[in-house]
Amino acid sequence: VTGTALRTALAYYEAWTGGDFEKAMTYIAPEITCDAPAGPLRGADAFRAFMGPFAAMLRGADLRAAYGDDTTALLMYDTRTALVGHAPGAERHTVENGLITHLQIVFDRQPFTEARLRANADQ
Amino acid sequence: VTGTALRTALAYYEAWTGGDFEKAMTYIAPEITCDAPAGPLRGADAFRAFMGPFAAMLRGADLRAAYGDDTTALLMYDTRTALVGHAPGAERHTVENGLITHLQIVFDRQPFTEARLRANADQ
Repeated sequence: VTGTALRTALAYYEAWTGGDFEKAMTYIAPEITCDAPAGPLRGADAFRAFMGPFAAMLRGADLRAAYGDDTTALLMYDTRTALVGHAPGAERHTVENGLITHLQIVFDRQPFTEARLRANADQ
Repeated sequence: VTGTALRTALAYYEAWTGGDFEKAMTYIAPEITCDAPAGPLRGADAFRAFMGPFAAMLRGADLRAAYGDDTTALLMYDTRTALVGHAPGAERHTVENGLITHLQIVFDRQPFTEARLRANADQ
C-alpha cells in the first residue's frame, strides 16, 4: 500500500469493520465534513452519530477495492447487517496530516428503509 | 493515467456522461456481469436496459476520483438528472482485453424512488 491517504483510509476501515469504532474515530478530523446520502454532515460528533449506529449493527464486511495517493483514497466494500444481507458502499476520503477531513459515502438507503418499514409493520 | 483497466473505465465514463451511450457500450463485454442496487444483471443487453435510460436523462456529471491498475478500476462521480439534482455513484470495473467484464455500481436509489412517487402523486 502506497500513499499516506490510502493508509489512513484503510486504518479507519479496518477499525470500524473490525468492531473498534472508537479506534476508527481517532482517524476522523474534529472538523470533518461528510457527504452522506441523506445530506451533508459537519464535525466529528455529527459523523459519529451517523456512522456509529451502522458500525454497531455490522456483521461482516469485505473490501472490494482500495486505491489512493497522498491526499485522496477511494474504497468499495460489501457489508452484512441484521437489517440488510448485502449492502455495498463506497467512500472517498480526503486526508490531511493523518486525519480524514472529508468523507463522501455512497450507499443505497432503499433496502434499509424497506427493512425498517417491514419491521414496523410486524409490530 | 496508468493502468489499462483505468484507461478503459475512464473511456467508458467519458462516453456515457458525454452523451454517447453507444460508444460507451463498445467498452462493455457481451458477457458482462453487473452488481446493481436492484440485483445482479447478466449480459450486455441487460446492462444496456439498466444503464441506457439513466444515461439518457443525465444533465451533467463530475468525476470525483478515479484509480486503478491493469485489471481493476474504481470511480466515484456526481450526477445531475431531471429527477434528482445530486446523485453520486461509484463503480468498480474489472477489465479484460480492453472490455469491462464486471461492473459493480453503487448509488442511492431512494431519491429516485421518492421523485417517481411524487411525480405519480402529481398526475
